[in-house]
Amino acid sequence: MREEVSPKAVRIPVSDLHASVSDPALTSMTLLNDIAGRFPQAVSFAAGRPYEGYYLTDDLSRYLSAFEKYLAEDLAMTPEGIRRTFFQYGRTKGFIHELIARHLKLDEGLTVDPESIVVTTGCQEAMILILRALYRDDRDVVLAAMPSYVGFIGAARIVGMPVWPVREGPGGIDLEDLNRQVEAVKAQGLRPRACYVVPDFANPSGACVSVADRARLLELASRHDFLLLEDNPYSLFRSTGERPPTLKSSDDESRVVYLGSFAKTAFAGARVGYIVADQLVTVADKQESLLADHLAKLKSMTTLNTSTVAQAVVGGYLLENGCSLEGATVREAKVYRRNLHAVLAGMEARFGPGRPHHGKVAWNSPQGGMFLVVTLPFRADDEVLEYSAAEFGVLWTPMHHFYAGAGGLHQIRLSFSVLSVEEISLGLDRLARLVDDLA
Amino acid sequence: MREEVSPKAVRIPVSDLHASVSDPALTSMTLLNDIAGRFPQAVSFAAGRPYEGYYLTDDLSRYLSAFEKYLAEDLAMTPEGIRRTFFQYGRTKGFIHELIARHLKLDEGLTVDPESIVVTTGCQEAMILILRALYRDDRDVVLAAMPSYVGFIGAARIVGMPVWPVREGPGGIDLEDLNRQVEAVKAQGLRPRACYVVPDFANPSGACVSVADRARLLELASRHDFLLLEDNPYSLFRSTGERPPTLKSSDDESRVVYLGSFAKTAFAGARVGYIVADQLVTVADKQESLLADHLAKLKSMTTLNTSTVAQAVVGGYLLENGCSLEGATVREAKVYRRNLHAVLAGMEARFGPGRPHHGKVAWNSPQGGMFLVVTLPFRADDEVLEYSAAEFGVLWTPMHHFYAGAGGLHQIRLSFSVLSVEEISLGLDRLARLVDDLA
Repeated sequence: MREEVSPKAVRIPVSDLHASVSDPALTSMTLLNDIAGRFPQAVSFAAGRPYEGYYLTDDLSRYLSAFEKYLAEDLAMTPEGIRRTFFQYGRTKGFIHELIARHLKLDEGLTVDPESIVVTTGCQEAMILILRALYRDDRDVVLAAMPSYVGFIGAARIVGMPVWPVREGPGGIDLEDLNRQVEAVKAQGLRPRACYVVPDFANPSGACVSVADRARLLELASRHDFLLLEDNPYSLFRSTGERPPTLKSSDDESRVVYLGSFAKTAFAGARVGYIVADQLVTVADKQESLLADHLAKLKSMTTLNTSTVAQAVVGGYLLENGCSLEGATVREAKVYRRNLHAVLAGMEARFGPGRPHHGKVAWNSPQGGMFLVVTLPFRADDEVLEYSAAEFGVLWTPMHHFYAGAGGLHQIRLSFSVLSVEEISLGLDRLARLVDDLA
Repeated sequence: MREEVSPKAVRIPVSDLHASVSDPALTSMTLLNDIAGRFPQAVSFAAGRPYEGYYLTDDLSRYLSAFEKYLAEDLAMTPEGIRRTFFQYGRTKGFIHELIARHLKLDEGLTVDPESIVVTTGCQEAMILILRALYRDDRDVVLAAMPSYVGFIGAARIVGMPVWPVREGPGGIDLEDLNRQVEAVKAQGLRPRACYVVPDFANPSGACVSVADRARLLELASRHDFLLLEDNPYSLFRSTGERPPTLKSSDDESRVVYLGSFAKTAFAGARVGYIVADQLVTVADKQESLLADHLAKLKSMTTLNTSTVAQAVVGGYLLENGCSLEGATVREAKVYRRNLHAVLAGMEARFGPGRPHHGKVAWNSPQGGMFLVVTLPFRADDEVLEYSAAEFGVLWTPMHHFYAGAGGLHQIRLSFSVLSVEEISLGLDRLARLVDDLA
């Protein structure tokens, strides 16, 4: 409830605030949460949250103790040093970088210099830092496959950096279009500084880039001299087939800035992520330093060090699992695999051959992750979402939110990470009734 | 140690990165930390950190439990709700807003609507959010007394917003100069959007704004139609005299955006701060919403929710202390008071009447806080700091770092928050020898 407001209170027109405040990338989450909040009984295919069935609150204290033990025994820290680590301002680049490097070695086969890692306040801050660093002036643009993660578009809006759209196909970012768009950027006198990609099970599309296309992507970046921002929150959650290598693992020109998240592999709420930025930055007289150190300067004026308590909790979790997140998330991965199969089988049963809307309702079949995309024979915007929630009790995310307002009007994203098989079945029944009603 | 770098590795000229990366506001902390790191045996008047003698690592788990109990008993949350609160993405504005409102009532006599509070990743993020919101286009400027907190200047550099300097006198920001500068800003066709002030024991000067000047400051803001950004990390640490009211407590036009920090009253490392933004923002057709809700949208693309674990730890600490931080920090306040007296008496004994450099070395006498400023009869820059550390074993902060590069070359800041009385005495002896050497 709002308190009484003084009649003399100043009013600020929203047009006097930075444009990002009114941008769809920033307002859509509020709007979607608002609709979801009004229909708590609906089956929700909307929330992109990790499965929470295995969390135990008591674990947190145990993780803190495990991390304390590591400081004392492995790093031979004094009690004063430990206290300082937990309570005081600390190293801007963070203090769990060695553990993150071990995880990357174990789970992704990646060898990274721990000094090139900046631990960030979630991967979201990592995006802010790299975009702030690369957006030198208004000739700089960043490319991204559309549809794209709304958090990335939002970060670019905050920084003010233009996002130049690239087509996405069933195999992820369309490399021919990327080449075309980079040339178009250059032809306009602009500079393509980087391209944002989620090679494994992109949010929202679930698409995965093939091994051959990963190599071509690196070649393209080299040929046109731009960086790749590789965002990898989902690669551990593959359902079928072999895990392809990360872009970073074939990156012999240091063209890949790697964005890491613990939101899906540890705890979303902790807000701990990281960025690997091993690029060399040259200052006057050939002095060289790591891009990570320049990002740390930006971070020192954005949030200072990442919360010590949050780092310690994630650090303890890594330690308890021998730094393997693949090992730590075996149970969650099984839930995602089970749910993906349930959604795909459920779609087939309701809209496949022999069913009334067969051929009019289409969907993709991701090999992992948390999302798939359904194409509907009618406009599926926020208004239809509200109708779907009110009349049929099922929530989903209109895809236009991931297109920066320019596309996806007949598509919806289904997220299946937090549901039971029964909820999936019930939710798809309700979706089928919505289709019956509108198709 | 740096790993081997591939000969093919890309090099990025620092001039291709955003200018803030090379700005003194962002590089000075690295430089000062580097000097401090090379002289670990020196007595350090440089670190602006809270006293750490009363921290106990085991307290953290207890705070988590206290907060869990509050969720279960006071907020009647289910075990699932509690788990979700600790582990999942959460409310962007945070979940300890009610406790913060109680603290403001108890410790500052301030009544604020909890909905107008955004819990932030330290006060640093609060500065980023409000500056990002107010910096609509390149006509917008923010005013600030010089010398000023380097974290504020740095936040403005990240956002790209110009900081317009205002003179500071012994009683804090010079209101005549503020009036003059606001008129100068307007005469240039620019918009003075806000003025940043630390009314109680400013960092670096230790200056405190009088009660009369607080009223005049509010009048000025009203007359010229700008906001006041009141930053208040130190008001609880007053040594003598009565605590003046905050600006926010006399703010009947909602002109004050209040910036709160727990860094000095709880734990710096946790990175929990907040912003009170009860201004009304008008959108089309007279719809009104709180500025806090617009800042939350920006926050959702900067760091999402503030770390749940960090919020829970600070929440538990507030609960254990009945939400009074004045009560919680009685022992620390005593240390700061003792140390302030030790520094002032020590300066008097070494540079006062009858001593060799009397009249050539001057210093102010703050009534609280963690800092004072000494004026020296010689240039006291980074080079002299290095000489002071190497030859005399004493560290301090050159004031020019707080002037955005334009002043303070004969001044140094002495920070006394983490020292013992013996260290203060030893440090001042060493400072006196430096003065003997250079004066």
